Amino acid sequence: MEPLEIAQQVLDAQPFSKHLGTQVTRFDTELSELVLDVRPEHKQQNGFVHGGVLSYLADNTLTFAGGTVLGTNVLTSEFKINYVRPGIGQRLIARATPIYNGKRQAVCECRVYVVNDGEEKLCAVAQGTIVNLDA
Amino acid sequence: MEPLEIAQQVLDAQPFSKHLGTQVTRFDTELSELVLDVRPEHKQQNGFVHGGVLSYLADNTLTFAGGTVLGTNVLTSEFKINYVRPGIGQRLIARATPIYNGKRQAVCECRVYVVNDGEEKLCAVAQGTIVNLDA
Amino acid sequence: MEPLEIAQQVLDAQPFSKHLGTQVTRFDTELSELVLDVRPEHKQQNGFVHGGVLSYLADNTLTFAGGTVLGTNVLTSEFKINYVRPGIGQRLIARATPIYNGKRQAVCECRVYVVNDGEEKLCAVAQGTIVNLDA
Amino acid sequence: MEPLEIAQQVLDAQPFSKHLGTQVTRFDTELSELVLDVRPEHKQQNGFVHGGVLSYLADNTLTFAGGTVLGTNVLTSEFKINYVRPGIGQRLIARATPIYNGKRQAVCECRVYVVNDGEEKLCAVAQGTIVNLDA
Repeated sequence: MEPLEIAQQVLDAQPFSKHLGTQVTRFDTELSELVLDVRPEHKQQNGFVHGGVLSYLADNTLTFAGGTVLGTNVLTSEFKINYVRPGIGQRLIARATPIYNGKRQAVCECRVYVVNDGEEKLCAVAQGTIVNLDA
Repeated sequence: MEPLEIAQQVLDAQPFSKHLGTQVTRFDTELSELVLDVRPEHKQQNGFVHGGVLSYLADNTLTFAGGTVLGTNVLTSEFKINYVRPGIGQRLIARATPIYNGKRQAVCECRVYVVNDGEEKLCAVAQGTIVNLDA
Repeated sequence: MEPLEIAQQVLDAQPFSKHLGTQVTRFDTELSELVLDVRPEHKQQNGFVHGGVLSYLADNTLTFAGGTVLGTNVLTSEFKINYVRPGIGQRLIARATPIYNGKRQAVCECRVYVVNDGEEKLCAVAQGTIVNLDA
Repeated sequence: MEPLEIAQQVLDAQPFSKHLGTQVTRFDTELSELVLDVRPEHKQQNGFVHGGVLSYLADNTLTFAGGTVLGTNVLTSEFKINYVRPGIGQRLIARATPIYNGKRQAVCECRVYVVNDGEEKLCAVAQGTIVNLDA
Protein backbone atom coordinates (compact mmCIF):
# COMPACT_ATOMS: atom_id res chain seq x y z
CA MET A 1 0.00 0.00 0.00
CA GLU A 2 1.09 3.56 -0.71
CA PRO A 3 1.97 5.78 2.28
CA LEU A 4 -1.00 8.03 1.42
CA GLU A 5 -3.39 5.07 1.59
CA ILE A 6 -1.93 4.00 4.92
CA ALA A 7 -2.33 7.56 6.19
CA GLN A 8 -6.00 7.56 5.13
CA GLN A 9 -6.48 4.24 6.94
CA VAL A 10 -4.98 5.72 10.11
CA LEU A 11 -7.32 8.68 9.78
CA ASP A 12 -10.33 6.44 9.17
CA ALA A 13 -9.42 4.48 12.30
CA GLN A 14 -10.07 7.68 14.31
CA PRO A 15 -13.83 7.78 14.90
CA PHE A 16 -13.69 11.55 15.45
CA SER A 17 -11.95 12.23 12.12
CA LYS A 18 -14.25 9.82 10.32
CA HIS A 19 -17.24 11.52 11.91
CA LEU A 20 -16.08 14.97 10.80
CA GLY A 21 -15.18 13.73 7.31
CA THR A 22 -11.45 14.49 7.20
CA GLN A 23 -9.42 13.29 4.22
CA VAL A 24 -5.64 13.14 3.84
CA THR A 25 -4.51 14.37 0.42
CA ARG A 26 -0.75 14.35 0.86
CA PHE A 27 1.56 12.55 3.23
CA ASP A 28 5.32 12.81 2.81
CA THR A 29 8.21 14.37 4.71
CA GLU A 30 7.81 17.65 2.84
CA LEU A 31 4.12 18.08 3.46
CA SER A 32 1.14 16.49 5.13
CA GLU A 33 -2.19 17.82 3.92
CA LEU A 34 -5.59 17.17 5.47
CA VAL A 35 -8.81 18.40 3.95
CA LEU A 36 -12.25 18.81 5.49
CA ASP A 37 -15.42 19.83 3.70
CA VAL A 38 -17.30 22.26 5.88
CA ARG A 39 -20.72 21.07 7.02
CA PRO A 40 -23.38 23.02 8.92
CA GLU A 41 -22.51 21.15 12.14
CA HIS A 42 -18.89 22.40 11.98
CA LYS A 43 -19.90 26.00 12.54
CA GLN A 44 -20.20 28.41 15.45
CA GLN A 45 -22.91 30.96 16.19
CA ASN A 46 -21.91 33.44 13.46
CA GLY A 47 -21.81 30.89 10.66
CA PHE A 48 -18.02 30.64 10.60
CA VAL A 49 -16.17 27.37 11.06
CA HIS A 50 -15.87 26.71 14.80
CA GLY A 51 -12.39 27.37 16.20
CA GLY A 52 -12.47 23.87 17.65
CA VAL A 53 -12.66 22.42 14.15
CA LEU A 54 -9.65 24.48 13.09
CA SER A 55 -7.68 23.44 16.17
CA TYR A 56 -8.67 19.78 15.68
CA LEU A 57 -7.48 19.94 12.08
CA ALA A 58 -4.24 21.72 12.96
CA ASP A 59 -3.53 19.24 15.75
CA ASN A 60 -4.19 16.21 13.56
CA THR A 61 -2.17 17.53 10.64
CA LEU A 62 0.74 18.28 12.97
CA THR A 63 0.56 14.67 14.18
CA PHE A 64 0.63 13.38 10.61
CA ALA A 65 3.59 15.61 9.75
CA GLY A 66 5.42 14.21 12.77
CA GLY A 67 4.45 10.71 11.65
CA THR A 68 6.24 11.17 8.31
CA VAL A 69 9.56 11.35 10.16
CA LEU A 70 8.88 9.45 13.40
CA GLY A 71 6.73 6.50 12.30
CA THR A 72 3.10 5.66 12.89
CA ASN A 73 3.00 5.43 16.69
CA VAL A 74 2.97 9.15 17.40
CA LEU A 75 0.88 11.77 19.14
CA THR A 76 0.84 15.52 19.58
CA SER A 77 2.06 16.33 23.07
CA GLU A 78 1.46 20.07 22.84
CA PHE A 79 0.71 22.78 20.32
CA LYS A 80 -0.10 26.44 19.98
CA ILE A 81 -2.49 27.99 17.50
CA ASN A 82 -3.16 31.53 16.35
CA TYR A 83 -6.47 32.17 14.62
CA VAL A 84 -5.96 34.91 12.06
CA ARG A 85 -9.17 35.06 10.02
CA PRO A 86 -12.71 33.74 10.44
CA GLY A 87 -13.25 30.43 8.68
CA ILE A 88 -15.68 31.46 5.95
CA GLY A 89 -15.92 28.99 3.11
CA GLN A 90 -16.70 25.50 1.91
CA ARG A 91 -13.49 23.62 2.61
CA LEU A 92 -10.57 23.60 5.04
CA ILE A 93 -7.06 22.63 4.00
CA ALA A 94 -4.35 22.13 6.63
CA ARG A 95 -0.71 21.77 5.64
CA ALA A 96 2.00 20.77 8.08
CA THR A 97 5.73 20.11 7.90
CA PRO A 98 8.36 18.90 10.33
CA ILE A 99 10.83 21.72 11.08
CA TYR A 100 13.06 19.62 13.27
CA ASN A 101 13.11 16.00 14.27
CA GLY A 102 15.17 13.77 16.48
CA LYS A 103 14.42 10.13 17.23
CA ARG A 104 12.02 10.83 20.01
CA GLN A 105 10.20 13.93 18.87
CA ALA A 106 9.56 16.38 16.08
CA VAL A 107 8.61 20.03 16.07
CA CYS A 108 6.16 20.76 13.27
CA GLU A 109 4.36 23.77 11.91
CA CYS A 110 0.94 23.93 10.31
CA ARG A 111 -1.12 26.43 8.37
CA VAL A 112 -4.85 26.08 8.00
CA TYR A 113 -6.57 27.61 4.99
CA VAL A 114 -10.22 28.05 4.22
CA VAL A 115 -11.34 27.82 0.60
CA ASN A 116 -14.18 30.17 -0.28
CA ASP A 117 -15.51 30.07 -3.85
CA GLY A 118 -12.21 28.66 -5.01
CA GLU A 119 -10.03 31.18 -3.18
CA GLU A 120 -7.73 29.97 -0.40
CA LYS A 121 -7.18 32.18 2.63
CA LEU A 122 -5.02 31.53 5.67
CA CYS A 123 -7.14 31.24 8.80
CA ALA A 124 -4.87 29.70 11.43
CA VAL A 125 -1.20 29.00 12.16
CA ALA A 126 0.04 26.36 14.57
CA GLN A 127 3.29 24.97 15.99
CA GLY A 128 3.67 21.89 18.13
CA THR A 129 5.60 18.91 19.41
CA ILE A 130 4.93 15.38 18.16
CA VAL A 131 6.23 12.49 20.24
CA ASN A 132 7.28 9.03 19.07
CA LEU A 133 5.73 6.57 21.50
CA ASP A 134 8.08 3.78 20.34
CA ALA A 135 11.23 5.71 21.30
CA MET B 1 -32.45 34.95 32.58
CA GLU B 2 -29.60 33.75 34.74
CA PRO B 3 -26.06 34.14 33.37
CA LEU B 4 -25.71 30.35 33.27
CA GLU B 5 -28.82 30.03 31.12
CA ILE B 6 -27.55 32.72 28.77
CA ALA B 7 -24.23 30.89 28.57
CA GLN B 8 -26.03 27.66 27.64
CA GLN B 9 -27.97 29.53 24.95
CA VAL B 10 -24.72 30.87 23.50
CA LEU B 11 -23.33 27.35 23.50
CA ASP B 12 -26.47 25.92 21.89
CA ALA B 13 -26.21 28.58 19.18
CA GLN B 14 -22.90 26.96 18.13
CA PRO B 15 -23.86 24.06 15.85
CA PHE B 16 -20.50 22.36 16.56
CA SER B 17 -20.98 22.45 20.34
CA LYS B 18 -24.60 21.35 20.01
CA HIS B 19 -23.48 18.51 17.74
CA LEU B 20 -20.85 17.33 20.23
CA GLY B 21 -23.23 17.70 23.18
CA THR B 22 -21.38 20.25 25.30
CA GLN B 23 -23.08 21.65 28.40
CA VAL B 24 -22.07 24.65 30.51
CA THR B 25 -22.34 23.93 34.22
CA ARG B 26 -20.84 27.09 35.67
CA PHE B 27 -20.32 30.56 34.34
CA ASP B 28 -19.00 33.32 36.57
CA THR B 29 -15.80 35.36 36.85
CA GLU B 30 -14.24 32.78 39.16
CA LEU B 31 -14.88 29.78 36.98
CA SER B 32 -16.38 28.70 33.71
CA GLU B 33 -17.06 24.99 33.46
CA LEU B 34 -18.02 23.05 30.35
CA VAL B 35 -18.90 19.38 30.38
CA LEU B 36 -19.02 16.87 27.57
CA ASP B 37 -20.18 13.27 27.81
CA VAL B 38 -17.83 11.11 25.79
CA ARG B 39 -19.43 9.32 22.85
CA PRO B 40 -17.87 6.72 20.55
CA GLU B 41 -17.50 9.31 17.77
CA HIS B 42 -15.31 11.52 20.02
CA LYS B 43 -12.50 8.98 20.09
CA GLN B 44 -9.25 8.32 18.25
CA GLN B 45 -7.82 5.01 17.06
CA ASN B 46 -6.81 3.74 20.52
CA GLY B 47 -10.18 4.34 22.14
CA PHE B 48 -9.07 7.52 23.95
CA VAL B 49 -10.84 10.83 23.53
CA HIS B 50 -9.44 12.49 20.40
CA GLY B 51 -7.02 15.34 21.13
CA GLY B 52 -9.15 17.51 18.87
CA VAL B 53 -12.09 17.13 21.26
CA LEU B 54 -9.88 18.16 24.20
CA SER B 55 -8.54 21.17 22.31
CA TYR B 56 -12.05 22.14 21.18
CA LEU B 57 -13.27 21.98 24.77
CA ALA B 58 -10.27 23.91 26.13
CA ASP B 59 -10.66 26.58 23.44
CA ASN B 60 -14.38 26.99 24.07
CA THR B 61 -14.04 27.09 27.84
CA LEU B 62 -11.27 29.69 27.55
CA THR B 63 -13.64 31.78 25.43
CA PHE B 64 -16.39 31.49 28.04
CA ALA B 65 -13.98 32.46 30.83
CA GLY B 66 -13.00 35.52 28.80
CA GLY B 67 -16.68 36.25 28.26
CA THR B 68 -17.31 36.49 32.00
CA VAL B 69 -15.12 39.60 32.15
CA LEU B 70 -15.30 40.98 28.59
CA GLY B 71 -18.95 40.47 27.61
CA THR B 72 -20.59 38.18 25.12
CA ASN B 73 -18.98 39.30 21.87
CA VAL B 74 -15.64 37.54 22.33
CA LEU B 75 -13.45 34.99 20.63
CA THR B 76 -10.25 33.12 21.35
CA SER B 77 -7.48 34.67 19.27
CA GLU B 78 -4.79 32.18 20.27
CA PHE B 79 -4.12 29.44 22.75
CA LYS B 80 -1.64 26.77 23.70
CA ILE B 81 -2.43 23.33 25.03
CA ASN B 82 -0.39 20.59 26.69
CA TYR B 83 -1.87 17.11 26.70
CA VAL B 84 -0.74 15.35 29.84
CA ARG B 85 -2.73 12.11 30.00
CA PRO B 86 -4.81 10.10 27.56
CA GLY B 87 -8.51 10.88 27.79
CA ILE B 88 -9.85 7.62 29.15
CA GLY B 89 -13.30 7.89 30.67
CA GLN B 90 -16.95 8.77 30.28
CA ARG B 91 -16.99 12.52 30.73
CA LEU B 92 -14.82 15.57 30.13
CA ILE B 93 -14.88 18.59 32.42
CA ALA B 94 -13.06 21.77 31.43
CA ARG B 95 -12.54 24.60 33.90
CA ALA B 96 -11.22 28.00 32.91
CA THR B 97 -10.53 31.27 34.70
CA PRO B 98 -9.39 34.72 33.61
CA ILE B 99 -5.91 35.43 34.97
CA TYR B 100 -5.75 38.95 33.65
CA ASN B 101 -8.14 41.18 31.81
CA GLY B 102 -8.15 44.63 30.33
CA LYS B 103 -10.96 46.15 28.29
CA ARG B 104 -9.88 44.66 25.03
CA GLN B 105 -8.58 41.26 25.99
CA ALA B 106 -8.20 38.66 28.70
CA VAL B 107 -5.61 35.98 29.30
CA CYS B 108 -7.25 32.84 30.64
CA GLU B 109 -6.12 29.41 31.76
CA CYS B 110 -7.97 26.14 31.47
CA ARG B 111 -7.62 22.61 32.80
CA VAL B 112 -9.40 19.70 31.19
CA TYR B 113 -10.23 16.65 33.28
CA VAL B 114 -11.53 13.27 32.27
CA VAL B 115 -13.85 11.44 34.64
CA ASN B 116 -13.38 7.67 34.65
CA ASP B 117 -15.65 5.64 36.92
CA GLY B 118 -16.17 8.68 39.09
CA GLU B 119 -12.51 9.65 39.36
CA GLU B 120 -11.35 12.92 37.84
CA LYS B 121 -7.92 13.08 36.24
CA LEU B 122 -6.20 16.03 34.60
CA CYS B 123 -5.66 15.39 30.91
CA ALA B 124 -4.84 18.78 29.38
CA VAL B 125 -3.76 22.29 30.37
CA ALA B 126 -4.27 25.37 28.21
CA GLN B 127 -3.57 29.09 28.22
CA GLY B 128 -4.85 31.64 25.75
CA THR B 129 -5.95 35.11 24.77
CA ILE B 130 -9.62 36.07 24.46
CA VAL B 131 -10.47 39.21 22.53
CA ASN B 132 -13.44 41.53 23.02
CA LEU B 133 -14.77 42.28 19.53
CA ASP B 134 -16.74 45.28 20.80
CA ALA B 135 -13.63 47.08 22.10
CA MET C 1 22.94 21.42 52.07
CA GLU C 2 19.35 22.61 51.96
CA PRO C 3 17.45 22.25 48.65
CA LEU C 4 17.22 26.06 48.43
CA GLU C 5 20.99 26.39 48.72
CA ILE C 6 21.49 23.75 46.04
CA ALA C 7 19.04 25.60 43.82
CA GLN C 8 20.98 28.84 44.30
CA GLN C 9 24.20 27.00 43.39
CA VAL C 10 22.60 25.70 40.21
CA LEU C 11 21.50 29.24 39.38
CA ASP C 12 24.95 30.67 40.14
CA ALA C 13 26.45 28.04 37.82
CA GLN C 14 24.53 29.70 34.94
CA PRO C 15 26.69 32.63 33.82
CA PHE C 16 23.64 34.34 32.29
CA SER C 17 21.62 34.19 35.53
CA LYS C 18 24.64 35.28 37.56
CA HIS C 19 25.19 38.16 35.14
CA LEU C 20 21.58 39.32 35.43
CA GLY C 21 21.56 38.89 39.22
CA THR C 22 18.81 36.31 39.67
CA GLN C 23 18.18 34.85 43.13
CA VAL C 24 16.09 31.83 44.09
CA THR C 25 13.96 32.48 47.16
CA ARG C 26 11.89 29.32 47.28
CA PHE C 27 12.35 25.87 45.87
CA ASP C 28 9.94 23.08 46.72
CA THR C 29 7.29 21.05 44.92
CA GLU C 30 4.61 23.60 45.75
CA LEU C 31 6.47 26.64 44.51
CA SER C 32 9.68 27.76 42.93
CA GLU C 33 10.34 31.47 43.22
CA LEU C 34 13.03 33.44 41.44
CA VAL C 35 13.68 37.12 42.07
CA LEU C 36 15.52 39.68 40.00
CA ASP C 37 16.26 43.26 40.97
CA VAL C 38 15.69 45.46 37.95
CA ARG C 39 18.78 47.29 36.70
CA PRO C 40 19.00 49.94 33.97
CA GLU C 41 20.47 47.38 31.55
CA HIS C 42 17.36 45.16 31.88
CA LYS C 43 15.12 47.71 30.20
CA GLN C 44 13.76 48.43 26.74
CA GLN C 45 13.36 51.75 24.96
CA ASN C 46 10.40 52.98 27.03
CA GLY C 47 12.00 52.33 30.41
CA PHE C 48 10.02 49.15 31.08
CA VAL C 49 11.67 45.82 31.81
CA HIS C 50 12.57 44.22 28.48
CA GLY C 51 10.25 41.37 27.46
CA GLY C 52 13.34 39.21 27.02
CA VAL C 53 14.11 39.56 30.73
CA LEU C 54 10.56 38.49 31.61
CA SER C 55 10.71 35.51 29.25
CA TYR C 56 14.16 34.54 30.57
CA LEU C 57 12.84 34.64 34.13
CA ALA C 58 9.67 32.70 33.27
CA ASP C 59 11.68 30.08 31.39
CA ASN C 60 14.18 29.64 34.20
CA THR C 61 11.54 29.48 36.93
CA LEU C 62 9.58 26.89 34.91
CA THR C 63 12.77 24.82 34.73
CA PHE C 64 13.27 25.05 38.48
CA ALA C 65 9.65 24.06 39.13
CA GLY C 66 10.18 21.04 36.89
CA GLY C 67 13.39 20.30 38.77
CA THR C 68 11.53 19.99 42.08
CA VAL C 69 9.74 16.90 40.77
CA LEU C 70 12.12 15.58 38.09
CA GLY C 71 15.58 16.06 39.62
CA THR C 72 18.41 18.39 38.75
CA ASN C 73 19.19 17.33 35.19
CA VAL C 74 16.31 19.10 33.49
CA LEU C 75 15.66 21.67 30.82
CA THR C 76 12.71 23.56 29.39
CA SER C 77 11.88 22.06 26.02
CA GLU C 78 9.16 24.55 25.12
CA PHE C 79 7.05 27.27 26.68
CA LYS C 80 4.50 29.93 25.90
CA ILE C 81 4.27 33.35 27.50
CA ASN C 82 1.61 36.06 27.52
CA TYR C 83 2.75 39.54 28.52
CA VAL C 84 -0.13 41.25 30.28
CA ARG C 85 1.30 44.47 31.71
CA PRO C 86 4.45 46.52 31.15
CA GLY C 87 7.20 45.71 33.63
CA ILE C 88 7.35 48.95 35.61
CA GLY C 89 9.08 48.63 38.95
CA GLN C 90 12.16 47.75 40.93
CA ARG C 91 11.94 43.97 41.24
CA LEU C 92 10.64 40.96 39.37
CA ILE C 93 9.27 37.90 41.14
CA ALA C 94 8.51 34.74 39.17
CA ARG C 95 6.56 31.88 40.72
CA ALA C 96 6.16 28.51 39.08
CA THR C 97 4.53 25.20 39.96
CA PRO C 98 4.34 21.78 38.37
CA ILE C 99 0.77 21.05 37.23
CA TYR C 100 1.50 17.56 36.04
CA ASN C 101 4.55 15.35 36.08
CA GLY C 102 5.49 11.92 34.88
CA LYS C 103 8.96 10.40 35.05
CA ARG C 104 10.16 11.96 31.85
CA GLN C 105 8.54 15.37 31.84
CA ALA C 106 6.54 17.92 33.75
CA VAL C 107 4.13 20.61 32.62
CA CYS C 108 4.54 23.72 34.74
CA GLU C 109 2.94 27.13 34.94
CA CYS C 110 4.54 30.41 35.94
CA ARG C 111 3.42 33.91 36.81
CA VAL C 112 5.79 36.84 36.71
CA TYR C 113 5.09 39.85 38.91
CA VAL C 114 6.72 43.24 38.99
CA VAL C 115 7.03 45.02 42.32
CA ASN C 116 6.64 48.77 42.11
CA ASP C 117 6.95 50.76 45.34
CA GLY C 118 6.02 47.67 47.30
CA GLU C 119 3.01 46.73 45.19
CA GLU C 120 3.07 43.48 43.22
CA LYS C 121 1.42 43.38 39.81
CA LEU C 122 1.13 40.46 37.42
CA CYS C 123 3.03 41.16 34.22
CA ALA C 124 3.37 37.81 32.45
CA VAL C 125 1.94 34.29 32.49
CA ALA C 126 3.71 31.25 31.08
CA GLN C 127 3.17 27.52 30.60
CA GLY C 128 5.75 25.01 29.43
CA THR C 129 7.23 21.54 29.32
CA ILE C 130 10.29 20.58 31.36
CA VAL C 131 12.18 17.45 30.36
CA ASN C 132 14.19 15.10 32.57
CA LEU C 133 17.42 14.42 30.69
CA ASP C 134 18.15 11.38 32.88
CA ALA C 135 14.94 9.58 31.90
CA MET D 1 17.99 57.07 6.88
CA GLU D 2 17.62 53.54 5.58
CA PRO D 3 15.06 51.26 7.30
CA LEU D 4 17.92 49.02 8.47
CA GLU D 5 19.65 51.96 10.16
CA ILE D 6 16.41 52.98 11.84
CA ALA D 7 15.96 49.40 13.03
CA GLN D 8 19.46 49.41 14.52
CA GLN D 9 18.68 52.70 16.27
CA VAL D 10 15.53 51.16 17.78
CA LEU D 11 17.58 48.20 18.94
CA ASP D 12 20.29 50.43 20.40
CA ALA D 13 17.61 52.34 22.29
CA GLN D 14 16.87 49.12 24.22
CA PRO D 15 19.42 48.98 27.03
CA PHE D 16 19.00 45.19 27.31
CA SER D 17 19.73 44.59 23.61
CA LYS D 18 22.64 47.03 23.71
CA HIS D 19 23.97 45.28 26.79
CA LEU D 20 23.78 41.84 25.14
CA GLY D 21 25.28 43.14 21.89
CA THR D 22 22.44 42.42 19.45
CA GLN D 23 22.74 43.68 15.86
CA VAL D 24 20.04 43.86 13.20
CA THR D 25 21.32 42.69 9.80
CA ARG D 26 18.12 42.72 7.79
CA PHE D 27 14.82 44.50 8.19
CA ASP D 28 12.16 44.25 5.51
CA THR D 29 8.72 42.67 5.13
CA GLU D 30 10.25 39.43 3.87
CA LEU D 31 12.72 38.97 6.68
CA SER D 32 13.98 40.52 9.88
CA GLU D 33 17.32 39.18 11.01
CA LEU D 34 19.00 39.80 14.35
CA VAL D 35 22.47 38.58 15.19
CA LEU D 36 24.17 38.11 18.54
CA ASP D 37 27.77 37.12 19.13
CA VAL D 38 27.88 34.64 21.98
CA ARG D 39 29.81 35.79 25.04
CA PRO D 40 30.67 33.79 28.15
CA GLU D 41 27.98 35.61 30.14
CA HIS D 42 25.27 34.39 27.71
CA LYS D 43 25.70 30.77 28.74
CA GLN D 44 24.12 28.30 31.15
CA GLN D 45 25.80 25.73 33.37
CA ASN D 46 26.76 23.31 30.58
CA GLY D 47 28.42 25.90 28.39
CA PHE D 48 25.50 26.18 25.96
CA VAL D 49 23.76 29.44 25.21
CA HIS D 50 21.18 30.04 27.93
CA GLY D 51 17.59 29.39 26.82
CA GLY D 52 16.72 32.86 28.06
CA VAL D 53 19.07 34.37 25.48
CA LEU D 54 17.40 32.34 22.73
CA SER D 55 13.93 33.35 23.90
CA TYR D 56 14.99 37.00 24.20
CA LEU D 57 16.33 36.92 20.65
CA ALA D 58 13.26 35.14 19.26
CA ASP D 59 10.94 37.59 21.03
CA ASN D 60 12.84 40.63 19.79
CA THR D 61 13.10 39.38 16.22
CA LEU D 62 9.37 38.59 16.20
CA THR D 63 8.73 42.18 17.30
CA PHE D 64 10.91 43.54 14.50
CA ALA D 65 9.16 41.33 11.93
CA GLY D 66 5.84 42.70 13.15
CA GLY D 67 7.27 46.20 12.94
CA THR D 68 7.99 45.81 9.22
CA VAL D 69 4.24 45.62 8.56
CA LEU D 70 2.73 47.46 11.55
CA GLY D 71 5.08 50.42 12.08
CA THR D 72 7.51 51.22 14.83
CA ASN D 73 5.20 51.39 17.85
CA VAL D 74 4.79 47.67 18.38
CA LEU D 75 5.34 45.02 21.01
CA THR D 76 5.12 41.26 21.31
CA SER D 77 1.98 40.41 23.26
CA GLU D 78 2.59 36.65 23.39
CA PHE D 79 4.78 33.99 21.87
CA LYS D 80 5.65 30.32 22.05
CA ILE D 81 9.08 28.81 21.60
CA ASN D 82 10.34 25.27 21.07
CA TYR D 83 14.01 24.65 21.80
CA VAL D 84 15.24 21.96 19.44
CA ARG D 85 19.02 21.82 19.87
CA PRO D 86 21.49 23.12 22.45
CA GLY D 87 23.01 26.44 21.48
CA ILE D 88 26.61 25.45 20.87
CA GLY D 89 28.57 27.95 18.85
CA GLN D 90 29.90 31.47 18.45
CA ARG D 91 26.96 33.34 17.00
CA LEU D 92 23.17 33.34 17.06
CA ILE D 93 21.10 34.36 14.06
CA ALA D 94 17.34 34.83 14.42
CA ARG D 95 15.12 35.22 11.36
CA ALA D 96 11.48 36.20 11.56
CA THR D 97 8.69 36.88 9.08
CA PRO D 98 5.11 38.06 9.34
CA ILE D 99 2.74 35.24 8.33
CA TYR D 100 -0.39 37.32 8.65
CA ASN D 101 -1.07 40.93 9.45
CA GLY D 102 -4.09 43.12 9.92
CA LYS D 103 -3.99 46.75 11.03
CA ARG D 104 -3.88 45.98 14.69
CA GLN D 105 -1.72 42.91 14.91
CA ALA D 106 0.55 40.50 13.10
CA VAL D 107 1.31 36.84 13.64
CA CYS D 108 4.97 36.16 12.97
CA GLU D 109 7.24 33.15 13.01
CA CYS D 110 10.91 33.00 13.92
CA ARG D 111 13.75 30.52 13.66
CA VAL D 112 16.88 30.86 15.73
CA TYR D 113 20.13 29.36 14.45
CA VAL D 114 23.45 28.91 16.14
CA VAL D 115 26.59 29.19 14.04
CA ASN D 116 29.36 26.84 15.10
CA ASP D 117 32.64 27.00 13.16
CA GLY D 118 30.79 28.43 10.19
CA GLU D 119 27.96 25.90 10.21
CA GLU D 120 24.42 27.07 10.94
CA LYS D 121 22.10 24.83 12.92
CA LEU D 122 18.51 25.43 13.93
CA CYS D 123 18.18 25.67 17.70
CA ALA D 124 14.76 27.19 18.35
CA VAL D 125 11.45 27.88 16.62
CA ALA D 126 8.95 30.50 17.75
CA GLN D 127 5.53 31.88 16.83
CA GLY D 128 3.86 34.93 18.30
CA THR D 129 1.54 37.91 18.13
CA ILE D 130 2.82 41.44 17.64
CA VAL D 131 0.50 44.30 18.48
CA ASN D 132 0.39 47.77 16.95
CA LEU D 133 0.05 50.19 19.86
CA ASP D 134 -1.07 53.00 17.54
CA ALA D 135 -4.10 51.06 16.27
